[in-house]
Amino acid sequence: MSEASIDVVGIGNAIVDVFANTDDAFIAANGLNKNTMTLIDARRAEELYARMGPAREISGGSCANTMAGVAALGGSAAYIGKVCDDQLGDVFRHDIRAAGVRFDTAPAKDGPPTARSLIVITPDAHRTMNTFLGACVNLGPDDVDQKLVAAGRVTYLEGYLWDRPLAKQAFLAAARAAHAAKRKTSLTLSDPFCVDRHRDSFLALVKEHIDILFANEAEITSLYRTKSFDAALQQVRGHCEIAVLTRSEKGSVIVSGDEVHAVDAAPVTKVVDTTGAGDLYAAGFLYGLARGYGLERCGRIASLAAAEVISHVGARPEADLRALVRETQG
Amino acid sequence: MSEASIDVVGIGNAIVDVFANTDDAFIAANGLNKNTMTLIDARRAEELYARMGPAREISGGSCANTMAGVAALGGSAAYIGKVCDDQLGDVFRHDIRAAGVRFDTAPAKDGPPTARSLIVITPDAHRTMNTFLGACVNLGPDDVDQKLVAAGRVTYLEGYLWDRPLAKQAFLAAARAAHAAKRKTSLTLSDPFCVDRHRDSFLALVKEHIDILFANEAEITSLYRTKSFDAALQQVRGHCEIAVLTRSEKGSVIVSGDEVHAVDAAPVTKVVDTTGAGDLYAAGFLYGLARGYGLERCGRIASLAAAEVISHVGARPEADLRALVRETQG
Repeated sequence: MSEASIDVVGIGNAIVDVFANTDDAFIAANGLNKNTMTLIDARRAEELYARMGPAREISGGSCANTMAGVAALGGSAAYIGKVCDDQLGDVFRHDIRAAGVRFDTAPAKDGPPTARSLIVITPDAHRTMNTFLGACVNLGPDDVDQKLVAAGRVTYLEGYLWDRPLAKQAFLAAARAAHAAKRKTSLTLSDPFCVDRHRDSFLALVKEHIDILFANEAEITSLYRTKSFDAALQQVRGHCEIAVLTRSEKGSVIVSGDEVHAVDAAPVTKVVDTTGAGDLYAAGFLYGLARGYGLERCGRIASLAAAEVISHVGARPEADLRALVRETQG
Repeated sequence: MSEASIDVVGIGNAIVDVFANTDDAFIAANGLNKNTMTLIDARRAEELYARMGPAREISGGSCANTMAGVAALGGSAAYIGKVCDDQLGDVFRHDIRAAGVRFDTAPAKDGPPTARSLIVITPDAHRTMNTFLGACVNLGPDDVDQKLVAAGRVTYLEGYLWDRPLAKQAFLAAARAAHAAKRKTSLTLSDPFCVDRHRDSFLALVKEHIDILFANEAEITSLYRTKSFDAALQQVRGHCEIAVLTRSEKGSVIVSGDEVHAVDAAPVTKVVDTTGAGDLYAAGFLYGLARGYGLERCGRIASLAAAEVISHVGARPEADLRALVRETQG
């Protein structure tokens, strides 16, 4: 892959997901925050894992899922994230490379193990994530390959990075490198609790460093401390070039200056696991943007990619997204 | 769990399965033996893994799958098998215990890593397994808890153990302990290539040490060097107390002295991945046997459990097998 041809360069927490089915009683008994992501330490991860049922391991990580989606759509993608030199690190590296994503970040030789997210899926298909960041805490500005970032049409950053000081520096280094190369930057707010933890600095960040913002309804209303989606929409218009706001089955709203699009959610026969819905929406949108498509077409591709990923367990695409988009003229 | 109440004690290779979808061209290009299990070394495992697509990890191991099935049906099960003290070993231990199976074999502190089987699934739902035995080579007679075996109504052994000298000794130690306690022994022939490798010693083993034999059509005809299923059926009748012969969608034949039953396969809406079909058939059968059910009823429960496991990826049950059996009066 020539660096000149990279559609999207993503930076995020490199995580292996550990999925188990459960019920709402388990969520309550263990004090979990349903449908959100909670950071946990090694001891809590061990306790919770011991209580979970039989599980399956599938590579995840919000931004990594998005990059896998861009590649599955036929775009070129590169990923920067930190694993440890261990078995789960091997699994993560294998899976993202096998998905067609360039991934060359050096693994940590020691320190905490590769990150994992303990994800329990309730019968309503919602997922509740409990993430032990492990080796991700060692991602720093030195891991940001400036040439790589400069080669990406868009650099995509996940809000989750903001939880760790070193990763935050990496994040800012990448945003600056992208803008220095006259490239675009994009950010997902990641999670309403993540927005809660970092509201003011996120607002400053969006205004100063971000061209394209992705957020779901809970995140954007949290950012602007409002209960009204529309009020948040009005505010975000002035704060970045393109705001892409997703609302699950209600579809999405894309706003850029005076241009506004309301895009329907793509139909899904059976929602099995909502993990990765936002990640794959972003993948479809960024893929379209890198192709130079109009915003509405970007939104339609995004909706298709999101619909595919919620119809199976795991946050990376399993179907042929390229064919899917072709067939539905997304 | 009181040891007096253990329905089935299983001994096998403790393996984490690594599943990826592929096509027949991949099978051909990599010289794989479709629909069978091939043993591979660490280097070949690395090469093949690098060529495989994005994967998911789910605990497996033929006999371990069977024990998980016995537990899912409501029976009591214990497992003896060797993992290494590493991340995949943790995954294996967590999953089998979370499935309700007693598992206390000490992990290897060093030596080769936990075993993995690289399983590729073709669009026809067939699976082709490539197993790196890793830490399994360290399973030996010292790992066989004689009191545990004596407490099991049936001891279940997988033919795959015969591939390693130490495991073979463990196998024989377990068979002797079971018979010394006036318990039953059972064996699955595991794989036609495995039968090919060990035909004469398998025949001697069946005659001398095994009460209940499980085999599919390819395995039993290989054992008796015949192309005729019926010819193999006639021969096996005299060689062990109960022979349970499975024929995929053609159902199964159970023979014990003069008693013979032909049991239909249970219907499946869509066959997704045949991995674990034989393992779960054995689970259902052994569960029924431990309950004292008649052979035909054991076969019906076996067919139901097999049908469930081939309707999803992974070789351990996902649905509530107990409820399934209750509903269908299996």
